[in-house]
Amino acid sequence: MQGIESLLYGIGIAGVAVNAAAGVLDAGRKPFDLFGMVVVALAASLGGGTLRDVLLDRTVFWIADQSNLIAAIVAGLATFLVVRVVRLPPRLFLLPDALGLALFTVSGTQAAIAMGAPWLVASLMGVITGVFGGIVRDVLCNEVPLVFTAELYATASWAGALLLLALLEAGVSPGWAALAGATLVLVIRLGAIRFKWRLPVFIARS
Amino acid sequence: MQGIESLLYGIGIAGVAVNAAAGVLDAGRKPFDLFGMVVVALAASLGGGTLRDVLLDRTVFWIADQSNLIAAIVAGLATFLVVRVVRLPPRLFLLPDALGLALFTVSGTQAAIAMGAPWLVASLMGVITGVFGGIVRDVLCNEVPLVFTAELYATASWAGALLLLALLEAGVSPGWAALAGATLVLVIRLGAIRFKWRLPVFIARS
Amino acid sequence: MQGIESLLYGIGIAGVAVNAAAGVLDAGRKPFDLFGMVVVALAASLGGGTLRDVLLDRTVFWIADQSNLIAAIVAGLATFLVVRVVRLPPRLFLLPDALGLALFTVSGTQAAIAMGAPWLVASLMGVITGVFGGIVRDVLCNEVPLVFTAELYATASWAGALLLLALLEAGVSPGWAALAGATLVLVIRLGAIRFKWRLPVFIARS
Repeated sequence: MQGIESLLYGIGIAGVAVNAAAGVLDAGRKPFDLFGMVVVALAASLGGGTLRDVLLDRTVFWIADQSNLIAAIVAGLATFLVVRVVRLPPRLFLLPDALGLALFTVSGTQAAIAMGAPWLVASLMGVITGVFGGIVRDVLCNEVPLVFTAELYATASWAGALLLLALLEAGVSPGWAALAGATLVLVIRLGAIRFKWRLPVFIARS
Repeated sequence: MQGIESLLYGIGIAGVAVNAAAGVLDAGRKPFDLFGMVVVALAASLGGGTLRDVLLDRTVFWIADQSNLIAAIVAGLATFLVVRVVRLPPRLFLLPDALGLALFTVSGTQAAIAMGAPWLVASLMGVITGVFGGIVRDVLCNEVPLVFTAELYATASWAGALLLLALLEAGVSPGWAALAGATLVLVIRLGAIRFKWRLPVFIARS
Repeated sequence: MQGIESLLYGIGIAGVAVNAAAGVLDAGRKPFDLFGMVVVALAASLGGGTLRDVLLDRTVFWIADQSNLIAAIVAGLATFLVVRVVRLPPRLFLLPDALGLALFTVSGTQAAIAMGAPWLVASLMGVITGVFGGIVRDVLCNEVPLVFTAELYATASWAGALLLLALLEAGVSPGWAALAGATLVLVIRLGAIRFKWRLPVFIARS
């Protein structure tokens, strides 16, 4: 299991880096300076896990281990430099972004279970960890959060978290349950992008 | 007193449900999907109490008891479905919304006193519990928070919290003090709606 | 050292008051009522230290000592009243604002070190304490945060925090290290205002 632990840790750091890069690309549409860019990168990549840890009253993960912070800053700066020279196709980020969502969802749900949270709260912690960073990013950029309008973004996260919890309840081992949950997030999210799946949009009568 | 405790608990859940419904109605003016709707409903109904609990370093109330979470989700989804069919008059929500404000104010102030907070902090915790959810709701919808411009919304909350604290200081029993505080919030808020009472609006010279 | 402690405490309260006044001036461009004004003043002056304390899991500073809260409310109300009569030149606030940034940066960094945070986290806590209040203020006013676009605002804060940490590492006494860090913040910030120093602005190719 030592190998799997290291692998998960590495994927977690990679998820942080990818979300930081996505934050820089989003902020690039506003006249932010280098520092504003770094703040948006940090908020996008660390915001979800931070809110989860504050709500659960755990030590905030990037205060306990600053590798996450370094990964976010380096990835943000690198993206800032690269995008000044090369034009990256937006599609490039869709797969790692979906991977990050899957991993953040699973790790957030597991952290909540470890603190003894009831199932509905635990699934919501998974969703918060997965999507809150993107909400903060968009609020800082003064836009309506993309998460609320994009193809099944948070819905994919919630479905994966619920599957993970159902499998644990059914006695499946944590490792397999996590793998199944993460896979479901990926399948729904990538399917939604490919086939334009959407939840019903709500416009109030007025 | 057992009966009063149960009654307060029931009114608290009702306040959460009403605020969730109001959140959905507000979000309806934006092209959010079903999930975005649920997030806004949760933020509007649980945001104030969450910030209070995080600031006071208490266990967040909906993590300790997920009935609140279920009430918010069910009320949000029900409103989503009903509003697609029937057109609800906005006035329908004014009375329960004012009731929710009154109850949230009193419960927030009491929670802060129980943690030993000084009086000014305690009154502010009452206001935060009452109004912060609405602020988050409007920020997520990318609007200037209504609370800052509406008729004596937060002012009613603050007045009620201060009355509660003054009565407690004067030796009145907690039950009667809470009742008086909540009544004052209701009277000011409903009077402001009916008679268009307002605080002076501030426009800087420039 | 008793004298220095008192001096620092006094400057801290002054920093809170100045930031509250700046918040009222900023909110004045929106049609907020008196209460909305007070909320923006509180968020602008107490927001940074609050986020720092929540992240570090310390008791929030204005809950522990409500003098800060009183200073923010009084300064906010006074500004509200004065600006209705006299037109203040915006330049009047630049020096005390820079002083407030310098002091908040140093106190935030020191608080993080005292909690045993690693150096990168500690420097970030200094920056958060210095600039987060202004970010919340602008988000509440529905604007892109000024901090992200202004002349070397947060950069000055970060540079000062890093100098403080480097001097402590080199064995300099905490008092002198704090003085040097605060001075660096002031020099960079005032130089940036005077000579229009800027970080490169980033506009993505698209």
